[in-house]
Parts: sequence; C-alpha cells; structure tokens
Amino acid sequence: MESITSFSAQIHFNYMGYEALEDLLKRTNYSSVFILVDENTREHCLPIFLASIGGKTKFEVVEIESGEINKSISSCMKVWNALSEKGSDRQSLLINLGGGVITDLGGFVASTFRRGIDFINIPTSLLAMVDASVGGKTGVDLGLLKNQIGVINQPKMVLIIPKFLNTLDKRQLNSGFAEMLKHGLITSEPYWRTLKQVDSAEQFEDHIYDSIVIKNEVVRQDPREKNLRRILNFGHTLGHAIESYFLENTERDTLLHGEAIAIGMIMEAFLSHQLTGLGINQLVDIKETILKHFDKVDFDDKAIHAIINLLKYDKKNSHGSVYFVLLKRIGEAQIDNRVPDDLLNQAFSYYKE
Amino acid sequence: MESITSFSAQIHFNYMGYEALEDLLKRTNYSSVFILVDENTREHCLPIFLASIGGKTKFEVVEIESGEINKSISSCMKVWNALSEKGSDRQSLLINLGGGVITDLGGFVASTFRRGIDFINIPTSLLAMVDASVGGKTGVDLGLLKNQIGVINQPKMVLIIPKFLNTLDKRQLNSGFAEMLKHGLITSEPYWRTLKQVDSAEQFEDHIYDSIVIKNEVVRQDPREKNLRRILNFGHTLGHAIESYFLENTERDTLLHGEAIAIGMIMEAFLSHQLTGLGINQLVDIKETILKHFDKVDFDDKAIHAIINLLKYDKKNSHGSVYFVLLKRIGEAQIDNRVPDDLLNQAFSYYKE
Repeated sequence: MESITSFSAQIHFNYMGYEALEDLLKRTNYSSVFILVDENTREHCLPIFLASIGGKTKFEVVEIESGEINKSISSCMKVWNALSEKGSDRQSLLINLGGGVITDLGGFVASTFRRGIDFINIPTSLLAMVDASVGGKTGVDLGLLKNQIGVINQPKMVLIIPKFLNTLDKRQLNSGFAEMLKHGLITSEPYWRTLKQVDSAEQFEDHIYDSIVIKNEVVRQDPREKNLRRILNFGHTLGHAIESYFLENTERDTLLHGEAIAIGMIMEAFLSHQLTGLGINQLVDIKETILKHFDKVDFDDKAIHAIINLLKYDKKNSHGSVYFVLLKRIGEAQIDNRVPDDLLNQAFSYYKE
Repeated sequence: MESITSFSAQIHFNYMGYEALEDLLKRTNYSSVFILVDENTREHCLPIFLASIGGKTKFEVVEIESGEINKSISSCMKVWNALSEKGSDRQSLLINLGGGVITDLGGFVASTFRRGIDFINIPTSLLAMVDASVGGKTGVDLGLLKNQIGVINQPKMVLIIPKFLNTLDKRQLNSGFAEMLKHGLITSEPYWRTLKQVDSAEQFEDHIYDSIVIKNEVVRQDPREKNLRRILNFGHTLGHAIESYFLENTERDTLLHGEAIAIGMIMEAFLSHQLTGLGINQLVDIKETILKHFDKVDFDDKAIHAIINLLKYDKKNSHGSVYFVLLKRIGEAQIDNRVPDDLLNQAFSYYKE
C-alpha cells in the first residue's frame, strides 16, 4: 500500500514500513534507540518486530504494565527514569510498540523528555492503527479523567503492520472497528456502506487504509482541534463518560474504548435524530449495524445518573456546558450542539429498548 | 519601557504590563483564570498584583511549595489536580507569579493540561526576569537531574514588574545578576563593560531591559536550540553539575542557580583561555568581576570528583561526550567544544587559587 503523509510523519505499511525505519536509522545518527512495550507486546509483537527489522541497531527495551489504568503519570515516571538511567540524551529515539496506551503515553514521554526527542509509533491494535496512529495526540489520564495531561506532537514515522492484528482477540478487534464505523458516519456515507457489509473480524484489515486516510484528512485541516477535527469526537462525549464509569466501578467488567464508543454512537445518533435532522431510517440503520458487532450493555438508573455526572468533566466541555458532535445525516457531522438534560436520559432509554 | 516581541509573546514592563493583561482578559473570554504562586509570592507579590490589576476577573489561587526541590512532577500533579478539580477547561488561563521554579513548572503544567492552555509569566525574581521569562523553555527536574522533563512552548505574555525585586534579598538578586553578566560575556563586550561598573544590587534593575533584548535575540534566531541558542549555556555545563551536587549533599548549604553559574563561568572562562583563545587579561577580568559579587565556595577532592561524574548526565551532552560553550573573547562564544578530563581538574584549581 502507498504511504500516507501526515504532517511531518510518514505512515508506512507492511514491509515498506520496515524498510523506511531501517533507512531512517541508517540516515540519522541516533545515540540510542529505545522500544517501549507492555508485557503483551513484549511477548507477542517484539519478537516479530526484531526478526523483521534489518540493520545493526541495538535496541533497549523498556516495559510498562498494560491497561488503561496504567496510562498514568506514574508510568511516565518509570519510562522517564529508565531513559535517564540508560543514558538517553536528546539524540535518542523512542519506538512505541503497542496499543493506544503505549503510543499515547510513549508519545508524551518522548515529547517531554529533555524537551522532546524523536519517536515512532508502531500501533499493534486495530484501534491504535486507525485512531491513535494519526493526529499527534499524546498523553495520559489524570486519575479517572482521560487524556487530561498531554501535548500535540507528531511522531517521526508510523508503521502499520497488519500482521500484529493476529495477536488480538475478537473484542479487541471490534474495539477498533467502532472507530472505523465512526469515520464513515462523520465523513463518508459510501465508506459506511462498505463497512456495513463486513461480517467478520478477518475482513477489518482490508479497510484500515481508508480509515487512516479519512482521519488524516480531518486532522490535516485542523491540527489544533479548533473546529473540524472535533467531529472525530462523535460518540465520544457519552462514550468517554461511559468508559470512565466502567473503569471506576471495579465490580463491573471494564469496557474497551471502542465498546464504550459504540454505545456512545448509538445514543448520540438518537440525539442527532432529535436535534440535527438525522432521519429515522438512518438512526435505525446505525443502531442495527453497531449491535451486529457489539453486545448490549446494561445500565440501571444509578449508572445513568453517575455517567451524566461524569460528562461535565469531559475535556471537550467549555465554560461548564456539555457540547456534542451530532450527525445531520450519515456522512455529515456538526459540532457544538448543546443537548438538554432530559434528552440524555431518553438516549439511554433508546439504547436499551 | 517599550514592549519586546518574543515569538507569539509580548514582554511588557511595569504599568504597561498590567494594562496589556487587563486588555487580554477583556478581549479573551477565558472560562477561568488561575494564579500559580508559592508561599513567598503569595505573601509578598500576590497582594501587589491584585491591587494593581483592574477589571472584574475572578482569580483562583493555586499554591505549591517554593524551592528547586519542589520543581518536580509531584508538584505538577498537585497543580494538574487543582486545575481539574476546580473545573478548569481548555479555555482556562494560568498566570505564573513567581521565580523560575514557578514559571518553568507552571509553563509545563499549562502546556500539558488538556494538551495546552494559555499561560502568562510574571517573573518575580531577577533571575526569572532576565532568564526564564524569554525563550519558551518549560519543565521540571527528574530527581536531581535538572529540567529533564519539559517542552518548548511560548507564554501568551510576559510581565516584568521590577517592583517585585524589592521582595528579594541580596543573594537572590545576585543570582539573577550572574545571568546578566553571562549575556554580556557571550554576545556583547559593551554590555559587559556597563555591568562591570555596577556596584550595588539597587542598580541591577536599570539593566534588565538590555539583558532581555539580548536573550530574546539569541532565542529568536534558534528557538529549538539547535545551534546558536546553546551559547546561553556558557557557565552552565559545570554550573549545573555544581548546582546538582549541592542539592544532593544536604549537609552543605544549597547554592542558588546564579551562584553555581557564577562559579561555572569562571571555570569555563579558564577552559576558554586554554582551548579557544580567550586572552589572559580577559580571563582575569572575568574572575575578578564575578568574585566582586560572589563569595568563593570551597571544593574538596571528593566534591570535585562527584561534580565531574554528574557532568555526564547533563542534558546538553550527546553520545556520552561532554560539550562546552567557550569564549573566543568577551562578547563572542563558540559551541561544541570537547574538553579533556584533566583540564576540568585544572579549572577547579584555577577557581580556588
């Protein structure tokens, strides 16, 4: 597949990715090269990576624990200290090999270590490939509040190696597929129709390229998220609050990011039908398509109340008001919609019915 | 005094600063405005600031403990959490009212909170006015390693209010004067000659403007510190190591930043005489002028050994080598000089003799 240019970063696919990386390592005299992994990518992805990359570079491996709960400043401290103890300097390179936690956190660590060293993202989850790989968002959570600490900074290069998807289970794959569906919903009705015909996770891989092109086009037009880029938050206003709620309530199984966003998209499609003219047929289409891939999740009144409270802390909120990205129709999104409180409760009812 | 433009930031002096800030607050609809202080600036500077600023803005005060030891990620956590708990959002503003610890740390906190909110620096120490106020360096220490974590990001505005200098003792004022002397040594022989005639701390204030102009001109030409800007590290390679050593050895009195830099400048002037052609008369002139303002500090062999070891962790080092900024003559500096180990010991001897 052809490489995609995203700001200063090139996004390379498969063997072309390895070649581009080898070339960069040859061209640039990095004083040291670190690979950030978690225990899963160390076991399943690192050997594949090391076997595929040519050249004589010596890689230092730094490991943090997997999981959103470890996307924290405390994990950053471990990595900063490891870089520092191993004598890393400003001419060091950090390669982030993992899912969104690793690429977001590693990007932040690199962007802030000695006021910024180069980093490369090699996303190993479908979610990270189609979402985190493009756009330069880096960061970590602050307690339960997602991505509160971070910067916008571009990686030097992104490598998309679909082979890594073989290491994922179906839930993980679906989680990424939710973001791909979102790309269709907010910008492209034809892409949505293509994805509707996808029955099994084995087919997801064929549509990664288009998803990255869509996301790249959106962020290219608005890197600092002043306007257009915010359409990427469709499904995320409620989705983030739902995700935080499940993270906080340890007696419930944690939802994966895409699983929470899938719910958020159904509810925000309902809000779109109420407020921005999304047709009833398209609303039903969205709900049915999403529920084909995602099991329904239970919410009691207490949960709904807690989630609505969490909304007000979402970082997209300004001046204390909650704004939503809503759809005018499939393929066209609109930012900055205020939603009356009672409609939020109705959105939960619609999801449940 | 006329305002100075530094990248996106304007540097304003005295009453013009207050006016510019009032105007900004009127023009920009910030959702909340926070002031970061330490216990000293809360007591001595905050009342002056609040009495001088007009308008109806409500300020939320956030306090951290003073001192280099608190220029840490743990202090950042306190401020990030405070901003988050008080419902700060992306349209919030952070005003950093304090010395270099407050402006460096506050700038980093603002640059990374929700991927970046606006911040304003109001340096209250002479050191912060002539050094930290310009150039966009933000950051904190990692253990004993200074400024390991940080980003380059410009404040929205800098206010220089010399009245705040009245709250400082003579050691603090001298600490800033060391950086002013450095500005002369690296770029301007006439400015150095002017500063040589300064006898008392009361006169420092008259020369702040020229120092800021010099520093601003250097960083304007090389914001990312690729080349020219590194001349600002004159005196800092040894100076930082000396400062770290004193911070680490709690049985010794801590040296202020400028006090350590003053020693570093004498030693690096000696290295300049050995390696880059600085004349003996100028070397003696530098030593005598600096020692007119700074008491000599004792170093035994153990201390010298420990300081030379700390050098290799200095963040300006690349590929494990230590590079120095040296002087060709007063007013002209040269980057990227390697210094043989034995000369480092001789530099200590020269300082002591």
